[in-house]
Amino acid sequence: MNGADVPSYSYLGPEGTFTEAALLKVPGAGHARRVPASTVGSALDAVRSGAVDAAMVPIENSVEGGVSATLDSIAVGDPLRIVREELVPITFVLAARAGTALADVRRIATHGHAWAQCRAWVDGHVRDAEYVPSSSTAAAARDLAAGEGGFDAAICSPLVAGRLGLAVLGEDIGDISDAVTRFILVGGPGALPPRTGADRTTLVIPLPVDHPGALMQILDQFAARGVNLSRIESRPTGQFLGDYFFSVDADGHVEDARVADALKGLHRISPGLRFLGSYARADRRSPAVERHTSDDAFTAADEWLGTILDGR
Amino acid sequence: MNGADVPSYSYLGPEGTFTEAALLKVPGAGHARRVPASTVGSALDAVRSGAVDAAMVPIENSVEGGVSATLDSIAVGDPLRIVREELVPITFVLAARAGTALADVRRIATHGHAWAQCRAWVDGHVRDAEYVPSSSTAAAARDLAAGEGGFDAAICSPLVAGRLGLAVLGEDIGDISDAVTRFILVGGPGALPPRTGADRTTLVIPLPVDHPGALMQILDQFAARGVNLSRIESRPTGQFLGDYFFSVDADGHVEDARVADALKGLHRISPGLRFLGSYARADRRSPAVERHTSDDAFTAADEWLGTILDGR
Amino acid sequence: MNGADVPSYSYLGPEGTFTEAALLKVPGAGHARRVPASTVGSALDAVRSGAVDAAMVPIENSVEGGVSATLDSIAVGDPLRIVREELVPITFVLAARAGTALADVRRIATHGHAWAQCRAWVDGHVRDAEYVPSSSTAAAARDLAAGEGGFDAAICSPLVAGRLGLAVLGEDIGDISDAVTRFILVGGPGALPPRTGADRTTLVIPLPVDHPGALMQILDQFAARGVNLSRIESRPTGQFLGDYFFSVDADGHVEDARVADALKGLHRISPGLRFLGSYARADRRSPAVERHTSDDAFTAADEWLGTILDGR
Amino acid sequence: MNGADVPSYSYLGPEGTFTEAALLKVPGAGHARRVPASTVGSALDAVRSGAVDAAMVPIENSVEGGVSATLDSIAVGDPLRIVREELVPITFVLAARAGTALADVRRIATHGHAWAQCRAWVDGHVRDAEYVPSSSTAAAARDLAAGEGGFDAAICSPLVAGRLGLAVLGEDIGDISDAVTRFILVGGPGALPPRTGADRTTLVIPLPVDHPGALMQILDQFAARGVNLSRIESRPTGQFLGDYFFSVDADGHVEDARVADALKGLHRISPGLRFLGSYARADRRSPAVERHTSDDAFTAADEWLGTILDGR
Repeated sequence: MNGADVPSYSYLGPEGTFTEAALLKVPGAGHARRVPASTVGSALDAVRSGAVDAAMVPIENSVEGGVSATLDSIAVGDPLRIVREELVPITFVLAARAGTALADVRRIATHGHAWAQCRAWVDGHVRDAEYVPSSSTAAAARDLAAGEGGFDAAICSPLVAGRLGLAVLGEDIGDISDAVTRFILVGGPGALPPRTGADRTTLVIPLPVDHPGALMQILDQFAARGVNLSRIESRPTGQFLGDYFFSVDADGHVEDARVADALKGLHRISPGLRFLGSYARADRRSPAVERHTSDDAFTAADEWLGTILDGR
Repeated sequence: MNGADVPSYSYLGPEGTFTEAALLKVPGAGHARRVPASTVGSALDAVRSGAVDAAMVPIENSVEGGVSATLDSIAVGDPLRIVREELVPITFVLAARAGTALADVRRIATHGHAWAQCRAWVDGHVRDAEYVPSSSTAAAARDLAAGEGGFDAAICSPLVAGRLGLAVLGEDIGDISDAVTRFILVGGPGALPPRTGADRTTLVIPLPVDHPGALMQILDQFAARGVNLSRIESRPTGQFLGDYFFSVDADGHVEDARVADALKGLHRISPGLRFLGSYARADRRSPAVERHTSDDAFTAADEWLGTILDGR
Repeated sequence: MNGADVPSYSYLGPEGTFTEAALLKVPGAGHARRVPASTVGSALDAVRSGAVDAAMVPIENSVEGGVSATLDSIAVGDPLRIVREELVPITFVLAARAGTALADVRRIATHGHAWAQCRAWVDGHVRDAEYVPSSSTAAAARDLAAGEGGFDAAICSPLVAGRLGLAVLGEDIGDISDAVTRFILVGGPGALPPRTGADRTTLVIPLPVDHPGALMQILDQFAARGVNLSRIESRPTGQFLGDYFFSVDADGHVEDARVADALKGLHRISPGLRFLGSYARADRRSPAVERHTSDDAFTAADEWLGTILDGR
Repeated sequence: MNGADVPSYSYLGPEGTFTEAALLKVPGAGHARRVPASTVGSALDAVRSGAVDAAMVPIENSVEGGVSATLDSIAVGDPLRIVREELVPITFVLAARAGTALADVRRIATHGHAWAQCRAWVDGHVRDAEYVPSSSTAAAARDLAAGEGGFDAAICSPLVAGRLGLAVLGEDIGDISDAVTRFILVGGPGALPPRTGADRTTLVIPLPVDHPGALMQILDQFAARGVNLSRIESRPTGQFLGDYFFSVDADGHVEDARVADALKGLHRISPGLRFLGSYARADRRSPAVERHTSDDAFTAADEWLGTILDGR
């Protein structure tokens, strides 16, 4: 608890982002110390330095895919552990200062991802809109409210538009109406969250060499134990073209025998493997487990081998 | 040739980007009509509409990975074909207007990717630098030269700094000194580039369902024919969390029997597969081909089966 | 038809064996010329030399497994083709000359396989029975009828016991009451039997080297095309310990696209592969075929690739 | 030691067979009690009943393949353990009573396997030889020496010909001059033979269902752990056509981590698996072991997982 009576959390700021909304879903976070960070990397570094107990950052967006900054920052450096996940629906509004009509809007500020997700609405409703890049949707809204930046409107969350008292010229303007982002709460190494039966395990796996056989060998560690993967993403290591690591989410908890066995198999072929945590799924969906990959099957096999080694 | 005497190319602009540098490596492009586009999508749409003959866009960066906008834009819409690739080393400079000393720099404009790649140098050389997002490195430089934007320096390519007459306060400031980006020249469907023996084939493959078995089945189409993959990237389809397609580069040309056979196998299990082209590798590196996956082995097997079907 | 008006068949004799019973199930065989052979090898050689049109030999017994002599003889030498199969239930009787009571039986002659299959009954009904090896069950019965060999009873088929007028001291004395043997009719190379939708294809596949990976690569040629194997047997090549070939029966006809594709894949990795025929299953059981391995899927994939190669 | 001062062994008799020659290679067996048995099954049953300490039986012949009687007898019934193997070169002679010239030989007695292995020599040297089946090569020789059976010569081992004082009309008459048979010494369950680094592990694995996928899943348990198979044979269960089990020899000892892990994986998917022993190879050949399947890799993976489960 970092020496204080209340827990402390960093998050990808500024205030009013979807990330803060995710953090507020954590029990007790409403009364906790909440520290906005300008980048995912600095939010995570605050955990590593001990400045905060944990950090809330986005990991996967249903439209844009994995959040590269998070995937990359968590994959290297001092070890961290994901302890919780939250799902937040993503909806955008076109916000403007009081008195601005939709017909007046020429220049629109927002983050590049939000701009990409609202192109159809903007093309249909704002003649020749000019895009002004901003470092976040909340920053665009804040600059707009402050009269800075020389633009007429911002694409942002309803939350931040409301907080800043901006007028809403268009509601739910994203191309995909049920977009959702998954956020993770990241702490330091320590006791694992308890197994719930509907868990997720996140791993970072260096891809040994660039041929399909090597990737198949890695995937086989999961497939052979009946462990499903709900997310698999490649990320460049930054060293040279074609040098990748894989970021994957596997169904199950490391205390499930089939997951533990898969992890040991992965460690043998790729010892640089990094375990990023086992934690409850936000959607509470349990995987189907076949008999031969159940804990019972693992226990029975261990006992059978024991009798052989004991000479019985 | 689009009705004109000279070929015409769109590219991800503005002028002075690394993309234009890639385009200029294409024989004859120096005398061609070159049309900068504001986004990858619009560069590609100019090909689809027939406004230009082909478009040069980035596809893969050794530091940032696949270029999402390209991967996504080429994966849907009217079919396109990659006909050529170019490799361009990526080096950044910190550019300022004449008279600005390094010690004066507080606010630095650039594209988000460039900012991410120069953080170590900036943290070490510019006290408390503030990041000003820009839509491209060239745009940042141009605004700086024009005295617009309220910032003191820009991170951009040496090419554009030189063209604009900006002073260089720091050379080769990227964290990784041998960063390189791969660019592709994209045309419409038509005759395939000739097989050279050192070719690449690019595909978009919908991932049927989210389990490792399905992905392994896809990878096995390559592995079973000894076809190496030099790049494999997942991209969300944008429909819902966990719904992905794969963008892959396979060694070889579709006129190689083993590649053709792999493509047919892929089509059977994933008929939504999209072929994006077979083209010569910029590095001219030929793959090792085992005897049992050679064209000779395919021909011999076809002939053998023919004798059986003929009742001989 | 070998120059004669009626077809001619060799079979594993002597007369009265189960093999002759199988041959008599072939339409028209009752009026054909039937030539008993003393060994499977000589029955097959009669086909190779042109002395007969085809040979009936056993290939698989539900109790004893593959018939080694057949598997080995058909795997080498001039090529042969299986054109038909028959299933014959195997039942044994204990036969003796008139006047012999069960209590008088001390020495029993039969073929080693029959002896093995009737041990339980013999142990229960004949005190201290002594085994007298014979080259076939029919030969044992014939010697018994002729008063030769110095034994009291023979284990043979009901058919031969009846023909020779022997008394039956025990009926259906096999340990397994529903034993069945599969027989094959083997001709020379020629036109394939027509595809019926419920076919079998028999192959001989040299195992390249003695590791599981090589065998898996072979099996994957079937598995990847959804081709089921109803029989898989290893046989030594006779060269050295651990040097084996595989004899397999695959569901389907070589004119099925998935089977043809699997055979081509096998030929590439193991060019010494031998095709022994596609023929209708005696039990008329059709395999389930998944969409992606149907003839339609193969045709669609071929057409799709054709459009790419044509530059469309 | 069965209550006696000297060990006792059963073996597939009669005296003078190659099996007795194999038994005599076991240290101390020359002074042990040696009990010939008429069948492999009865030799093994003598171990099960405690009548002897162990039994020597043939398991694999380089010409004829696996010895079915051994594979089948050891696969069912009370559990047994292979504790040792011996390799014996197989050479045959044509033996006759003194005074018989080669030109006089018409009828030759021997075991069916021996007859098959000497066909080329016999066809070349004895005009129109007639085959007289015998239950073993030694029995044929013994009957010949006793003047029984009405035949002129026997095909048998040089050992038994010498013991019986028979004349040798042809030496080394087998078609394959370097034929060898592998024999196994089988005891009851108990302490495992020590790991030597050049070991073999023998298993009986029921094949779950008759499709290549199931067999591949079984083979993958070995392949995924880098465990080579030096012998793999199918045997019918005797229940119905197409119902098989597999008899395999794997390189390595159950105390090797990779072998133990493979066995546990097999037990999970096929709990009816039977372990038949780990024992030193007669040829002392050690397998190549890749780093990721070494004991060290297993230990490192176990320790790594331990730190995760401990919350470190």
